[in-house]
Amino acid sequence: MKDRRTFIKQAGLAGLAGFVPINPLLASDFKEDKSANNEVSDAKWPDGSRLVVSVSMQFEAGGQPVNAESPFPQNMQKGFIDLPGESWYQYGYKEGIPRMLDNWDKFGIKVTSHMVGSAVLKNPELAKEIVQRGHEAAAHGMDWATQYSMPYETEKKFIKDGADAIKKVTGFEPVGYNANWLRRGTNTLEILQELGFKYHIDDLSRDEPFLLKVKGNDFVVVPYTIRCNDIVLVEGKNFSADQFARQVIMEFDQLYIESEKKRRQMSISFHDRIGGTPQMVAATTQILSYIQKHKGVSFRRKDEIAQMAYQDKNIIRE
Amino acid sequence: MKDRRTFIKQAGLAGLAGFVPINPLLASDFKEDKSANNEVSDAKWPDGSRLVVSVSMQFEAGGQPVNAESPFPQNMQKGFIDLPGESWYQYGYKEGIPRMLDNWDKFGIKVTSHMVGSAVLKNPELAKEIVQRGHEAAAHGMDWATQYSMPYETEKKFIKDGADAIKKVTGFEPVGYNANWLRRGTNTLEILQELGFKYHIDDLSRDEPFLLKVKGNDFVVVPYTIRCNDIVLVEGKNFSADQFARQVIMEFDQLYIESEKKRRQMSISFHDRIGGTPQMVAATTQILSYIQKHKGVSFRRKDEIAQMAYQDKNIIRE
Amino acid sequence: MKDRRTFIKQAGLAGLAGFVPINPLLASDFKEDKSANNEVSDAKWPDGSRLVVSVSMQFEAGGQPVNAESPFPQNMQKGFIDLPGESWYQYGYKEGIPRMLDNWDKFGIKVTSHMVGSAVLKNPELAKEIVQRGHEAAAHGMDWATQYSMPYETEKKFIKDGADAIKKVTGFEPVGYNANWLRRGTNTLEILQELGFKYHIDDLSRDEPFLLKVKGNDFVVVPYTIRCNDIVLVEGKNFSADQFARQVIMEFDQLYIESEKKRRQMSISFHDRIGGTPQMVAATTQILSYIQKHKGVSFRRKDEIAQMAYQDKNIIRE
Amino acid sequence: MKDRRTFIKQAGLAGLAGFVPINPLLASDFKEDKSANNEVSDAKWPDGSRLVVSVSMQFEAGGQPVNAESPFPQNMQKGFIDLPGESWYQYGYKEGIPRMLDNWDKFGIKVTSHMVGSAVLKNPELAKEIVQRGHEAAAHGMDWATQYSMPYETEKKFIKDGADAIKKVTGFEPVGYNANWLRRGTNTLEILQELGFKYHIDDLSRDEPFLLKVKGNDFVVVPYTIRCNDIVLVEGKNFSADQFARQVIMEFDQLYIESEKKRRQMSISFHDRIGGTPQMVAATTQILSYIQKHKGVSFRRKDEIAQMAYQDKNIIRE
Repeated sequence: MKDRRTFIKQAGLAGLAGFVPINPLLASDFKEDKSANNEVSDAKWPDGSRLVVSVSMQFEAGGQPVNAESPFPQNMQKGFIDLPGESWYQYGYKEGIPRMLDNWDKFGIKVTSHMVGSAVLKNPELAKEIVQRGHEAAAHGMDWATQYSMPYETEKKFIKDGADAIKKVTGFEPVGYNANWLRRGTNTLEILQELGFKYHIDDLSRDEPFLLKVKGNDFVVVPYTIRCNDIVLVEGKNFSADQFARQVIMEFDQLYIESEKKRRQMSISFHDRIGGTPQMVAATTQILSYIQKHKGVSFRRKDEIAQMAYQDKNIIRE
Repeated sequence: MKDRRTFIKQAGLAGLAGFVPINPLLASDFKEDKSANNEVSDAKWPDGSRLVVSVSMQFEAGGQPVNAESPFPQNMQKGFIDLPGESWYQYGYKEGIPRMLDNWDKFGIKVTSHMVGSAVLKNPELAKEIVQRGHEAAAHGMDWATQYSMPYETEKKFIKDGADAIKKVTGFEPVGYNANWLRRGTNTLEILQELGFKYHIDDLSRDEPFLLKVKGNDFVVVPYTIRCNDIVLVEGKNFSADQFARQVIMEFDQLYIESEKKRRQMSISFHDRIGGTPQMVAATTQILSYIQKHKGVSFRRKDEIAQMAYQDKNIIRE
Repeated sequence: MKDRRTFIKQAGLAGLAGFVPINPLLASDFKEDKSANNEVSDAKWPDGSRLVVSVSMQFEAGGQPVNAESPFPQNMQKGFIDLPGESWYQYGYKEGIPRMLDNWDKFGIKVTSHMVGSAVLKNPELAKEIVQRGHEAAAHGMDWATQYSMPYETEKKFIKDGADAIKKVTGFEPVGYNANWLRRGTNTLEILQELGFKYHIDDLSRDEPFLLKVKGNDFVVVPYTIRCNDIVLVEGKNFSADQFARQVIMEFDQLYIESEKKRRQMSISFHDRIGGTPQMVAATTQILSYIQKHKGVSFRRKDEIAQMAYQDKNIIRE
Repeated sequence: MKDRRTFIKQAGLAGLAGFVPINPLLASDFKEDKSANNEVSDAKWPDGSRLVVSVSMQFEAGGQPVNAESPFPQNMQKGFIDLPGESWYQYGYKEGIPRMLDNWDKFGIKVTSHMVGSAVLKNPELAKEIVQRGHEAAAHGMDWATQYSMPYETEKKFIKDGADAIKKVTGFEPVGYNANWLRRGTNTLEILQELGFKYHIDDLSRDEPFLLKVKGNDFVVVPYTIRCNDIVLVEGKNFSADQFARQVIMEFDQLYIESEKKRRQMSISFHDRIGGTPQMVAATTQILSYIQKHKGVSFRRKDEIAQMAYQDKNIIRE
């Protein structure tokens, strides 16, 4: 594995505000680097930045259940299919992901794509393209099932099937996990660790990563967001795209101030069929343009954040 | 029929940003022009524009069922009529459509009016005026029934009755279709083709038209919108008019950028009783003024878009 | 009664953009002035203005039923009183109406106050003050009962009791009517006419007043609004005050343009406990300051509008 | 106790726009100062300011019941725990309160923290820190129970237990009370007085404090807010942070105008897990920066406001 020193050097070379290209990490990359000296101040991240921004791109469309919730009224008669609702989801892979992929390139950032297994199997070329363009594939369950109430073995198979689908189609072995609606069960973390996962994101409690002990072993939490998350637009009538942009920029403003004294992480999340619309990509463009004008900010995939967390002596432990 | 060459020439003469006046198309105009050379770059539309904007104006008021949903609380006692709710709908034909018609003229654009059959029969003069002022009449069912659960013959009669009402009252033979709440059934496309329709819009999956095979024959989809759709204001307390304007303008901004390399279609939709209010026409004025400042954009009726799609060798086929 | 000529002259003297003070009208003032010549162009109102703005101030607080809907969760256990909900209503008469009264004076405008009978009896001094400061008292039912399902005689008594309470307390005989949630029944107009009312407002269908025949006699409709109505803020989490201001100003912009060629009426409505908050009075201040910068606009009580409608040869008749 | 004269003098020394540091008040400080002359004009507060702004910071997280409402869908299967919902609450004490505490210091203001007893017991260090940094600890029940339907003795114990927890952990004896969802019962005020409380806030009816008689004795009401309250964002999809900021600023604008002639109080409220997010602290920063540019405004803890109310001869009595 790339050692800590090399890691920091690369960051230095590439500059902090831009993206530091890193090859897909292997599960074996995630050992704690106990030898490394912490060469940067406590306020900074191991890569020298003060604020790390982590962007998620959910790849779910195509994997949703029949008549899944959409902006259409939830009043379908039994036995019939909500065809326009389906086309709303199709937008996710036909227009949404491709548009966002182009936009990430435009800004030179890499993101984490949380992939539902069945969505990957339905659109394998697109899943492959996401990885080939340098983004992280993270697992997001085999499909949109309620995970928290599954018995242990059922859940384990459910998680493994999703991860296997991603690995098989994209060649990328997922090390991160996101449960449907963030609703993991009480066994989930243990299962994840057994299966070789290195971090999960189903936690909103902090603006920086932290370490848990799961069965005596460290496990990283890379916190997620529901407020800088395009899900606030899902009904098509709550937030408008410009509201979203303003709110996320306000989030950044405060975290940037705080990051002068304390390392901070900002999470922003987009779903294929929502964040991939033209108006939301326009909003994203406003957000990213704004953020990139600030020094000391790096955009990181969540596996990179998790790696930094494992290597970081000052990490919060809960 | 007007041949391809003539069509493009007309477009050239009239300029791209303005509206190209075209007589109501006949169903017989919709044959694929196999001989035509594609004289413009693949990024452009057959009419030479890079982005086509399609505006819809729903003509539904007067055709709604008793106590149809409105901004009023949905708690009427049985056996009584929601009189203020009715007056909310009446606004659609008394003020809304006339106001929008004047506004389209001000901007020199032609739109597609999706007409409910019973609404047309209730206000025939207004339906006629819409067509006489150069707009397309598209079918929208005989009334506000749930179409997706109808048996085949019932649905066929339902669609045909609505189209006949439009033809009889306005002289315009509809070639486009829009189901109530976009909810077509599994037989709808076949029925539409049998009845001579040339396209439908009940699909949100793309930002450009595409071709389907229906019983082995081509059928065009001109995608619709629910996010650049005034329906987001329907409860009278979600989006405000200025939010709507900002969101639609953001949608345009992104599609305009993309249209440099790829032909793109933008859809905007207004309902008689919502989009026809002064505040929403003010919003529409902001939107149209903004769009018309950009080169290479044409406003097109959906029948024109469908015609271009049939003639286009580079059309997406699904 | 003041004759038509005098009426127009007064308007001329006082200037169009300002308020023309008019004494409380008597029911007997509402005879059609058949002799009057229409001296102004058809595009103008009888008072020479092009756009008439009518502001409503609902006086309802104190008359609401126990545990009436409020921004608080609607989940009270049976047998208990929602005390903070009550205090939310009390705000209407303790702060809301007094604040709005001062604001109308600041802008020199007179409004129509739709008064619930039981609210008037609970706060008679405030009701009296409204009238003494030159505003119109219109009837709004005896209390917040569901009016549309009442039998004829019950409804008649209900309307009369409310009007009598207003007359008794304020000395003002109401000639206008507004039903709870605008929901009149099928007998309401006939009852209103029997009781000597001259107009009602429970109709959203036009942006100008119009005449109905009720039992063969003329009856004026002065249309109301639910979109330029602070009720869009009622849940405390939909519209914000600045959104309201922007939306209403957009409404004005379009109506003002239209009023160059056609007489137009704009309606704006405020409720004691909503429109009377500081943030909404700040919004109202923005709206009124904006409107008063435009020439040819007059602010009118609804009884004045109704009077103009009766005297107007060009009035729309339905 | 600090006498009235000294109190005013301190205010004079420290300047009106800044915060006047005052030690935690004792319950015994709340006697009416009958000897004091009212040296300032009636339009002013006893401390010489024209507008008093009172900020609340709810300390509730950790004390919520299992599966308490959160932005997540309220559809958990029975017997399972909403883990991401829990992490949403944890944000309140891990990030929210600490962030807000730093922000209050930045602006030099002291606030009132309404503390749920069980939340205090769960995070005693944080509760202590709030008090040590000069803020008021007010009682907010032992936990999130429905208080209004409790029998007298149950309610008394419930209130006392919460207050005792605060006293024990922080050393601060609460004199103010806030019921869950503001929903006090009909016995609450009497119980509060018995227990030595000096004011409650569960009333929205005025923009200034007032006095009630409870069992013949004076009791102060320091009115609260639900519109300048971050609860309007609670579902994560209604108000955006920028909307909140604009609305609160509009509230201030109007109250500031009014305070020229009449003493006015403005209330702003934040919850640990909502108002403590970066975007909301950014909004708060906008609000406080704006307010502090105005002369004659003081930020006061609610116990200070109550103290001024008891000493004020011109106080409204209901």
